[in-house]
Amino acid sequence: MYRILNREGMAKRGELHTVHGVIQTPVFMNVGTAAAIKGAVSTQDLEQIGTQVELSNTYHLHVRPGDEVIRQLGGLHRFMSWDKPILTDSGGFQVFSLAGLRKIKEEGVYFQSHIDGRKIFMGPKESMRIQSNLASTIAMAFDECPSSRADRAYVQASVDRTTRWLAHSKEEMRRLNSLEDTLNKNQLLFGINQGAVFDDIRIEHAKRIADMELDGYAIGGLAVGETHEEMYRILESTVPHLPADKPTYLMGVGTPENLLEGVARGVDFFDCVYPTRNGRHGHVYTAHGKLNLFNAQYGLDDSPIEEGCACPACSRYSKAYIRHLLKAKEMLGMRLCVLHNLYFYNTLMAQIRKALARGEFAAYKKEKLASLSSKM
Amino acid sequence: MYRILNREGMAKRGELHTVHGVIQTPVFMNVGTAAAIKGAVSTQDLEQIGTQVELSNTYHLHVRPGDEVIRQLGGLHRFMSWDKPILTDSGGFQVFSLAGLRKIKEEGVYFQSHIDGRKIFMGPKESMRIQSNLASTIAMAFDECPSSRADRAYVQASVDRTTRWLAHSKEEMRRLNSLEDTLNKNQLLFGINQGAVFDDIRIEHAKRIADMELDGYAIGGLAVGETHEEMYRILESTVPHLPADKPTYLMGVGTPENLLEGVARGVDFFDCVYPTRNGRHGHVYTAHGKLNLFNAQYGLDDSPIEEGCACPACSRYSKAYIRHLLKAKEMLGMRLCVLHNLYFYNTLMAQIRKALARGEFAAYKKEKLASLSSKM
Repeated sequence: MYRILNREGMAKRGELHTVHGVIQTPVFMNVGTAAAIKGAVSTQDLEQIGTQVELSNTYHLHVRPGDEVIRQLGGLHRFMSWDKPILTDSGGFQVFSLAGLRKIKEEGVYFQSHIDGRKIFMGPKESMRIQSNLASTIAMAFDECPSSRADRAYVQASVDRTTRWLAHSKEEMRRLNSLEDTLNKNQLLFGINQGAVFDDIRIEHAKRIADMELDGYAIGGLAVGETHEEMYRILESTVPHLPADKPTYLMGVGTPENLLEGVARGVDFFDCVYPTRNGRHGHVYTAHGKLNLFNAQYGLDDSPIEEGCACPACSRYSKAYIRHLLKAKEMLGMRLCVLHNLYFYNTLMAQIRKALARGEFAAYKKEKLASLSSKM
Repeated sequence: MYRILNREGMAKRGELHTVHGVIQTPVFMNVGTAAAIKGAVSTQDLEQIGTQVELSNTYHLHVRPGDEVIRQLGGLHRFMSWDKPILTDSGGFQVFSLAGLRKIKEEGVYFQSHIDGRKIFMGPKESMRIQSNLASTIAMAFDECPSSRADRAYVQASVDRTTRWLAHSKEEMRRLNSLEDTLNKNQLLFGINQGAVFDDIRIEHAKRIADMELDGYAIGGLAVGETHEEMYRILESTVPHLPADKPTYLMGVGTPENLLEGVARGVDFFDCVYPTRNGRHGHVYTAHGKLNLFNAQYGLDDSPIEEGCACPACSRYSKAYIRHLLKAKEMLGMRLCVLHNLYFYNTLMAQIRKALARGEFAAYKKEKLASLSSKM
């Protein structure tokens, strides 16, 4: 199902075969929280910018429009008209970051919807049932993402519970996949490694879940306030204890630099709201770092965001035009910036795969990092 | 330059040859006020939905980003990446509807920008210079659009001034088109008939401007509060006094029904914000009238807005999905509704031209009006 095509140090190029097609890794998943990429980007657009995997959120879709609604409409692929792979987050992260007043129990979490305040319960079984209704390609196990400021005792207890929740998640997914009327009986399950910034807890947890024969392994609870150096150190200590013959997913990360460093440390899958969120604020990526298109210096700039870029924005529109749209609050401005940024991320990953295929990733990474930090 | 292909009663099918291509009439122009169609619609999208003419506003572009900026960037076509015809409004309507405190003088209007309150002066010469900087395909003469509640004496004086302004507009456009560094030396000029709801003032004005050998004639100051019946009556009394061998443009109109009735009374060009504004509010057009996609009845509706519709929204997405997007305030929802509505209007005009070509417009109109008023 997952095949490593070639390696260079800890970095690996692979492919994951799914019922919705083959995912070439390393890959950056494009985040469409509520079954749409923010910025008026359609799935037709995604096909034009090289998106391999769309990522939606279990919690958001459970509260609106409801996973039962999406199930009745044939699942998330049909609902949003996207036939390539979809990964759904377990809802755990949103329960802990977005929801109101919550109570954690052994069986799951009681909390209030951020939309209408109604009481919701979600545990591993509930998360699996919702994700089975959504019928995503890859489901994520339900976990707790402890605060980066939580103390050691709390983190250890939380990780132990996450391990028990993972066992329940796996059991429930197996049961759901065996049911006659399940939409996607081949739904894959990735487990999530936690442990905040405590390397030994992370390593011990990685070892325990490595034995559980999951379809992939994620590292969660990073990019939540720790430094980049801490994140890289944790990857270096933890990834070697996850199965190398399964894909590795670094959740919620990150900058172009983070992606290059993550790949170098063995990561296959990434996702992050940066390209979409930055795009909506007129911040766009180039080979030489980010530009703020609101800056007055672009008022008469007839050139595209990046010369040679083949994205839908750079193919037709100038910085001056996009700046005008942003200042006039025309939604098209946001859309063009988001399209450019996602294309930038998707293209970066394609270049990384190409460099890995040639055994030239180390050189590519060095050159790319130097370029990204050199303002034009 | 303008050629009538065939007639049916007062209705005419024609084509206007411009430096930016041939416009098949009757035509509905798609309104992109600030050099973009609201709802994150790009010019690439416009090419997919059958748009013939894009319409932008002189006043809006003068205050932001500034017509001098657009001139330096090569004109509006290059600025927004659209190589088909563009019509620019003269700014008159916005000066009277949007701007703050204003003072009308013989030479033009002193007013305050609705963006930053700065003082601006615009008269026929200024409007022509701005539109020449924008380098649109068709420029509109600068006029006053008197309130629909203005009394007869005011309207008569206003119309007389508009006639003098038209002469100045024509003179200035001829001068600008003869200058070496003018971007579009073939810019066309349409004059505007005014007169509120006073048929005799309208007719007298139509006769006076008919002699001025303009490239086209617009009827302004309608759809500003009068009834549909008044509007149709004024068209019936006024259009026969405008040159039949020039295109006729009914400004700011209207509903699908208005377009059918306008064509029947000799109108070639239309424009209106209805399809874009309604789309942004989730109101979409069908052969059987408008739907409000916020309605709960569409929550599980897997069918497109209209069966058989080939627009980018109906080709891929269900009412249930678009309703979800609208409720979740995902911009994509607005964009899909706007794309559908503009495609609906553009397709309606194509059907009207086809019916005219076959000499079957009367029958087509009757059938279409019956369908539009019959809820499914």
